[in-house]
Amino acid sequence: MKEPGIGSEKIIRRKRDGQLEYQPDDLTVEEPLEIRIGRKTLATTMRTPGHDDELAAGFLVSEAIVRQRKEIAAISATRDNVITVELAAGVKLKLGSARRFGTISSSCGICGKNSIAAIRQNFSPIESAREVRVATETLASLPDLLRKQQGEFARTGGIHAAGLFDLKGEPKIVREDIGRHNAVDKVIGRAFLDRLLPLDQHVLLVSGRASFEIMQKALSAGIPIVASISAPSTLAMNFARESNQTLVGFLRPPSFNIYSHVERVILEER
Amino acid sequence: MKEPGIGSEKIIRRKRDGQLEYQPDDLTVEEPLEIRIGRKTLATTMRTPGHDDELAAGFLVSEAIVRQRKEIAAISATRDNVITVELAAGVKLKLGSARRFGTISSSCGICGKNSIAAIRQNFSPIESAREVRVATETLASLPDLLRKQQGEFARTGGIHAAGLFDLKGEPKIVREDIGRHNAVDKVIGRAFLDRLLPLDQHVLLVSGRASFEIMQKALSAGIPIVASISAPSTLAMNFARESNQTLVGFLRPPSFNIYSHVERVILEER
Repeated sequence: MKEPGIGSEKIIRRKRDGQLEYQPDDLTVEEPLEIRIGRKTLATTMRTPGHDDELAAGFLVSEAIVRQRKEIAAISATRDNVITVELAAGVKLKLGSARRFGTISSSCGICGKNSIAAIRQNFSPIESAREVRVATETLASLPDLLRKQQGEFARTGGIHAAGLFDLKGEPKIVREDIGRHNAVDKVIGRAFLDRLLPLDQHVLLVSGRASFEIMQKALSAGIPIVASISAPSTLAMNFARESNQTLVGFLRPPSFNIYSHVERVILEER
Repeated sequence: MKEPGIGSEKIIRRKRDGQLEYQPDDLTVEEPLEIRIGRKTLATTMRTPGHDDELAAGFLVSEAIVRQRKEIAAISATRDNVITVELAAGVKLKLGSARRFGTISSSCGICGKNSIAAIRQNFSPIESAREVRVATETLASLPDLLRKQQGEFARTGGIHAAGLFDLKGEPKIVREDIGRHNAVDKVIGRAFLDRLLPLDQHVLLVSGRASFEIMQKALSAGIPIVASISAPSTLAMNFARESNQTLVGFLRPPSFNIYSHVERVILEER
């Protein structure tokens, strides 16, 4: 059984010994998705099909269009590659917000903002009141857990993953997509639809780099700890410091870097 | 001497032996860039500062807003993180095109299109009239050449690179950016500003994956051969097949895959 996000195509492969073979290969599917609110097109994103309702919901949350589950009445596939969100009666789409998108992309989430000032959504920083900490060993266990949850899909080599874990390292939601930001939107969207926000006792792990937008999306869901297998950007780090988020990068056990709010990582120097 | 796209920040590193160190680390800079045509904001993208004029020019080319060098009168930094393109007298910005962007992203180039139909720019396929071929050994030499051109910048681990090579493997233009698509836009923009389009005797190598948009950007500049270190998507492959572009993926010498138009690769099976 193939995952829906995989396509099989005949290709030519040059092997290490110089021999050529012509055979089927698995590729990650990339198709556009148009996200509508009612009859209004909000955004078009390049994504891997599957979990489109979560992608739409997560996008609306991380773009501050909805904050509570009850604000969404329904999400349905209007037709292939078009998903329509119906807001609950009485919930009005602030035109100010909507106008900032012409559209989004497979991997940014900031598109369609018509000026630099509109990039930041002004979510509140994470509150420090509750003690939220993760052990070094737990953190170090996450990349393997993410890979195991990915299963067959990871084989295509063209997919990004995002995983939500509790503070003991238990995987809660894992999603994959050709776009880094889409994978995060799907995770947040699933949690939002299940009324689990804020995710203030959770760690988000992303397979790729940590950019500003990943941090902002995590903040929109109240996630206090974000870990990345790869590098963060300067802006991601500065944003994390301001937003009271812990940012871990280059999580390649046993080593990793901590870029902000180290107090949430239980470090025991040997 | 530091590259302008690198920021140095103190971080905590957990080393392989469990020891902790607190020291400066190099991060890739990520900042928003607002691209304007005259007084109109066309797009806001998250990018690594540097070569902003090339990024703006490449974006306009790959979004089919300009086709010839003479259509641009000037490109200048209006202020920090804002770049303004002045079109030549008599060149009108088709509002139809402009309205499709609210904005773009660091890594997509398709944003701001208000429907799926607007994603494809309808560039003509590559013409087959001229014989354009690249040898296996030349192809295999490109990843190392790209890395050498990247120099110190590659150290941050958070950067994508795009390189333009001639058919003998000579590097012509190499650019780096936190966004994959931005790196390609900078390469195409430089070539466009130097009046080198169409790049019909060239190979484009990208350090990351090959998505639909990368292929479309290459096509906008007339590039017949695109190689990627990593995986292509289904849509990238299908687009390449329709556009008469050769798409090479997983270019990890001595092995690689060919997804379309193999006739441009000189293969000698051993």
